[in-house]
Amino acid sequence: MGVMCEEVTQVVIPAAAFIGIGFALLQWFLVSKVRVSGDSDDYDHEYKGSLIDEAEFEEGVDGLEASIKCAEIQNAISVGATSFLFTEYRYLGIFMGVFGVIIFLFLGSVKGFSTESEPCTYNTGNYCKPALANAFFTTVAFLLGALTSVLSGFLGMKIATYANARTTLEARKGVGKAFITAFRSGAVMGFLLAANGLLVLWVTINLFKQYYEDDWEGLYESITGYGLGGSSMALFGRVGGGIYTKAADVGADLVGKVEKNIPEDDPRNPAVIADNVGDNVGDIAGMGSDLFGSYAESSCAALFVASISSFGVSLDYTAMSYPLIISSMGIVVCLATTVFATDLFEIKNVSEIEPSLKRQLLISTVLMTAGIAVVNFFALPSEFTLYDFGAEKAVKNWHIFFCVAIGLWAGLAIGYTTEYYTSNAYSPVQDVADSCRTGAATNVIFGLALGYKSVIIPIFSIAIAIYVSFSFAAMYGISVAALGMLSTIATGLAIDAYGPISDNAGGIAEMAGMSHKIRERTDALDAAGNTTAAIGKGFAIGSAALVSLALFGAYVSRAGIKTVDVLTPKVFIGLIVGAMLPYWFSAMTMKSVGSAALKMVEEVRRQFNSIPGLMEGLAKPDYATCVKISTDASLREMIPPGALVMLTPLIAGTIFGVETLAGVLAGSLVSGVQVAISASNTGGAWDNAKKYIEWQAGVNEHAKSLGPKGSDAHKAAVIGDTIGDPLKDTSGPSLNILIKLMAVESLVFAPFFATHGGLIFKLF
Amino acid sequence: MGVMCEEVTQVVIPAAAFIGIGFALLQWFLVSKVRVSGDSDDYDHEYKGSLIDEAEFEEGVDGLEASIKCAEIQNAISVGATSFLFTEYRYLGIFMGVFGVIIFLFLGSVKGFSTESEPCTYNTGNYCKPALANAFFTTVAFLLGALTSVLSGFLGMKIATYANARTTLEARKGVGKAFITAFRSGAVMGFLLAANGLLVLWVTINLFKQYYEDDWEGLYESITGYGLGGSSMALFGRVGGGIYTKAADVGADLVGKVEKNIPEDDPRNPAVIADNVGDNVGDIAGMGSDLFGSYAESSCAALFVASISSFGVSLDYTAMSYPLIISSMGIVVCLATTVFATDLFEIKNVSEIEPSLKRQLLISTVLMTAGIAVVNFFALPSEFTLYDFGAEKAVKNWHIFFCVAIGLWAGLAIGYTTEYYTSNAYSPVQDVADSCRTGAATNVIFGLALGYKSVIIPIFSIAIAIYVSFSFAAMYGISVAALGMLSTIATGLAIDAYGPISDNAGGIAEMAGMSHKIRERTDALDAAGNTTAAIGKGFAIGSAALVSLALFGAYVSRAGIKTVDVLTPKVFIGLIVGAMLPYWFSAMTMKSVGSAALKMVEEVRRQFNSIPGLMEGLAKPDYATCVKISTDASLREMIPPGALVMLTPLIAGTIFGVETLAGVLAGSLVSGVQVAISASNTGGAWDNAKKYIEWQAGVNEHAKSLGPKGSDAHKAAVIGDTIGDPLKDTSGPSLNILIKLMAVESLVFAPFFATHGGLIFKLF
Repeated sequence: MGVMCEEVTQVVIPAAAFIGIGFALLQWFLVSKVRVSGDSDDYDHEYKGSLIDEAEFEEGVDGLEASIKCAEIQNAISVGATSFLFTEYRYLGIFMGVFGVIIFLFLGSVKGFSTESEPCTYNTGNYCKPALANAFFTTVAFLLGALTSVLSGFLGMKIATYANARTTLEARKGVGKAFITAFRSGAVMGFLLAANGLLVLWVTINLFKQYYEDDWEGLYESITGYGLGGSSMALFGRVGGGIYTKAADVGADLVGKVEKNIPEDDPRNPAVIADNVGDNVGDIAGMGSDLFGSYAESSCAALFVASISSFGVSLDYTAMSYPLIISSMGIVVCLATTVFATDLFEIKNVSEIEPSLKRQLLISTVLMTAGIAVVNFFALPSEFTLYDFGAEKAVKNWHIFFCVAIGLWAGLAIGYTTEYYTSNAYSPVQDVADSCRTGAATNVIFGLALGYKSVIIPIFSIAIAIYVSFSFAAMYGISVAALGMLSTIATGLAIDAYGPISDNAGGIAEMAGMSHKIRERTDALDAAGNTTAAIGKGFAIGSAALVSLALFGAYVSRAGIKTVDVLTPKVFIGLIVGAMLPYWFSAMTMKSVGSAALKMVEEVRRQFNSIPGLMEGLAKPDYATCVKISTDASLREMIPPGALVMLTPLIAGTIFGVETLAGVLAGSLVSGVQVAISASNTGGAWDNAKKYIEWQAGVNEHAKSLGPKGSDAHKAAVIGDTIGDPLKDTSGPSLNILIKLMAVESLVFAPFFATHGGLIFKLF
Repeated sequence: MGVMCEEVTQVVIPAAAFIGIGFALLQWFLVSKVRVSGDSDDYDHEYKGSLIDEAEFEEGVDGLEASIKCAEIQNAISVGATSFLFTEYRYLGIFMGVFGVIIFLFLGSVKGFSTESEPCTYNTGNYCKPALANAFFTTVAFLLGALTSVLSGFLGMKIATYANARTTLEARKGVGKAFITAFRSGAVMGFLLAANGLLVLWVTINLFKQYYEDDWEGLYESITGYGLGGSSMALFGRVGGGIYTKAADVGADLVGKVEKNIPEDDPRNPAVIADNVGDNVGDIAGMGSDLFGSYAESSCAALFVASISSFGVSLDYTAMSYPLIISSMGIVVCLATTVFATDLFEIKNVSEIEPSLKRQLLISTVLMTAGIAVVNFFALPSEFTLYDFGAEKAVKNWHIFFCVAIGLWAGLAIGYTTEYYTSNAYSPVQDVADSCRTGAATNVIFGLALGYKSVIIPIFSIAIAIYVSFSFAAMYGISVAALGMLSTIATGLAIDAYGPISDNAGGIAEMAGMSHKIRERTDALDAAGNTTAAIGKGFAIGSAALVSLALFGAYVSRAGIKTVDVLTPKVFIGLIVGAMLPYWFSAMTMKSVGSAALKMVEEVRRQFNSIPGLMEGLAKPDYATCVKISTDASLREMIPPGALVMLTPLIAGTIFGVETLAGVLAGSLVSGVQVAISASNTGGAWDNAKKYIEWQAGVNEHAKSLGPKGSDAHKAAVIGDTIGDPLKDTSGPSLNILIKLMAVESLVFAPFFATHGGLIFKLF
């Protein structure tokens, strides 16, 4: 036993969760002090005699009028996003119901729906609860995970649509104020999600414990349903949201920027509202669900492996809860880190944004390293044994410290590498921008090469993390390494959410007709946001790789497999087909974006041709039709890729059996990680190469020689940016859900596959 | 023992090889009857009163003059290609020498350079030749393989540069005549290569046998060097040639087509000669070496596994030579198939070309299936045992029949799938062409999605072939399945080589100023050629996957590993890093093409700006400088990717040991196959989408609505085509060499790694 007793653990975890929620509410309160309204008293109260540089209004834009417009646009975006998410949730509700029944029936059938207690599998000699109870509680956990995931996405969207116009308005006071507003809003989302995920998981465990009592095998087996629920919602959120946002974005750009030569986010463009709604449903709600899913899954994987190790067997609750305590510490550490960013440093200049965000990553990593040591000292016994595919592995307290810490630092390495390859402050993106001189073709060739190259360091980081944590503590080591990478999730999400909020803020500034100077500031925020979004995706992918491997290990343990030997044909065909799945999935999602974008283009062209006075700004476009096109496309097109991911483990496991499925999981993991990283970095680099040509003109001699907007090089850059859109915001980030989700689904269904799977080999 | 005795085997194999060589010479003779010369007597003799449609000369182009011009251009291309290859071979000569020494030293060190005989590893109880002898003979086999590979590439280039102008001239008589000329020339190359590879291998085995006598373990271990030699030359041939051709092609297109709006292959373009030279050194010489490498490696893998199975132990020479007899039968079958194409059917219409080439594939596959049955009946005993990772597997004669046949038919499935996804007769390419309406961005998105989707069927075909052949005959089954896929290599190469020859023919027609009608005919040949080139690449990749797996199995056997368990960290980190290597490699090669193309663009622009009268056709461009840029770039840039491939197995094996290396091989195999197939199909589809818009205008209503040349859709298509160039001709096809070469290198060095490898784990 460690130093900390069970009672303290039961206080520490919810306390940390409530601190996180309280801090999120405080940040929200600070953001809410920025008023967005058409009430002129409010406006006078807020802005008269304030810091606003009156020169901002030089272009004849009235401050109050801009504020009213901002409020209107914000409202339109918020209504659009809310209505889309509710429509999406109706579909997801049906899916949850159907899949819940499938889980119950499949798992219930393992022992023929018997209500008799069974001898335990690992804790031999004891009796465990019947398989039917596990089927029931797994289904409940699945539903809770799904609901929490949906809530995470929805809250994130609400916050982001609340913050976007406020960021725009604060941009009038200077880039620093705008940055703080966007960043604080990101923090609201980050802390709410992290705290909420932790709290629901803790409550679920304690409720289930009332029934399971000392049968921790069954308890934590059921809890894996929580991870499955979280991740399956994330899949549809990412894919549906990704198709929505990119259909609108690509469609808007193709007609607006390329054909009509009007700026991005110009209010005359009929797809502009859909585009801005898309940022919130795709990049915010989708990403929120995604990272919540990773967090839930890595916790579940660690808990499951622990439950069949000495922690579970000796009923050491504090040690069992180690993953939750690490997450609790993470919330506290991120809180301290956020205070650094918001109160101790002030951003005065555009060029300080990226270093400041990078500093956040570094600070949270350093503090967390100390935090892990503290948690290890209090929560873990000095020596214990862990389950290692049928064997027992003796492990020391400090071994686990290294496992968590290496995951954490690998995350930092991935974050920094991503920043290097996607920020236009460094040579890779500048080379891509330079290649635009000779046209779109060289831009694309250089961009693809950049994405391919950017996988090298992340893969080595992941490989080292895997090797070290696996050597120290087998599959438990991998799962806590994943948790380590995700322990600073609140900061990571804050940084990540900052991107789409700034993007929206820029859109609102353009649509509200604010001055060029303000648009420049929001553009600068946005360029940094592209990089942080890429960093966020890097984290999501890196942690997904570790999480999937941990889930894979848990699956293998639960399915009772001792080795996954590449030299057997069953495994090898799984491996090669698994490695193909990310391609199949990407083909579907990219084609979906392409087709939906074509429809959007037709509609936008139709409106420009048929609405008199639209181009001159005299008539309003029909935004709603474009919103409908995106909505319909995303809801229809998310089904086939979703089905591919959800059905593959079921088919492979049922027909070909547990070994082939193990091969499929390993293959999709090692292949999907590469496709995902290269796709999201290529896309991020193209976006920032375009921004480099656009807004640094006048600052940097090289950028100046390529620009300004409208130059041939800029046109080539816009093409690259458009191609990158589905890569970085639809197929790339969905792939990490593909690999995680297949793994967690296999884990949940493992008892079924082990009992009834491999039909084809039984028949022939 | 089978029905066939050793003496008959010793006659049958060389006889088949000589028949192949004789048939190749006959085809060459038939091609040589087309005269290319400036001698007007010759010209009159050939063409006066012949079938040439006099209307061809309507545009005022004199026939004799065109013939003279063709001869000049052909000479320029041939001289350029020869000079490049000789320069390349100087570098390769140094590499061969150095690497030969490395092989000798590494393998010699296994037993400390002892000259004592050793107890055999598998044939227990007997004594085998010393490790030093194996080191020496492996080095000799390596050099022989390397020389044969170089010879294959060089002969292919000579034939192609001999045939290109002849195809152009025959195009005046009609599309059928031109087709036959191009196809016959492809056949010359196909048969020479297949026969030559077989003959050298047979001679080498028989020479080595003089020394090894009954020590077949050592004999066939040494023979693996032949595969390594073949493949390492192929790597540099593919990469160097690929960079050469695409630097020139991309550079020429970017200025010529995009900026100056002059046609492809216009003689005013200074990069045009380099472009046409490139087709011959990259697509022809590189591909020749590549497929020779696959053939050599699959034979070596099969021979090695057989030598440690009952065939080797019981010294059954005929059964041992089964792989060579299958190849002999392949030559005979392909000969019959070619007669069908050249003599029994006549092509009268452009639309008959692709069906005719497809028919070739089908006929050769059907005939070969019967051929395999015949070989099996005569060459193999009815029952025998095969080595299966330490165990013995009892196998029946007809099991092996299914192994070879499934490889063969999987190849056909891959070929047909590739045709479907890259030919503009079907909807996938037409959809890509259609997406050009909205610009280059959607074209690229659709093209990438098409490439991703095109991996699905090939991967399932490969997976089925692996499962069946592995289940029947373990690793021997895989290696003979690979041989089955390659057994119709002569036909495959003929079809494949037809592509670049037609491409060159079109270039020569344009440069010689021949009429529009002739250019249309050569364009039609070329469009079919794009598809057949993609089919050829599909074969190369599919067979590479099987070959690598067979080599992987042989490596694992030779390194004494019993399982490659994904659940061990050593293997898993190898797997994920291995899966990353294709991306690293592609990043290097694509960046190389991009950078070299940028240099080419600058030079071409410089010439257009500084040479007065060039644009008007009054002055000649300086072709030589462009040739030099391509040459320098390809020789310099082929070194880093080459080093990556050659050094990875050495580093992984020496430092991390045999298990990690096994993981690297499996990872690079399952990931590389996907990247290679998608890259080459995406590129092929873009090229044909462009051709669809260009030349079918007037035929097909849909194509008509997109075209003609110079329309916005066409401009977007040209961008896609340019991006596809390095994908389909540099990085894609080089990747199959990456996976094969790492596997065969691991196999050759396996005894060294098994003895001295894993330094890092020995130290810590």
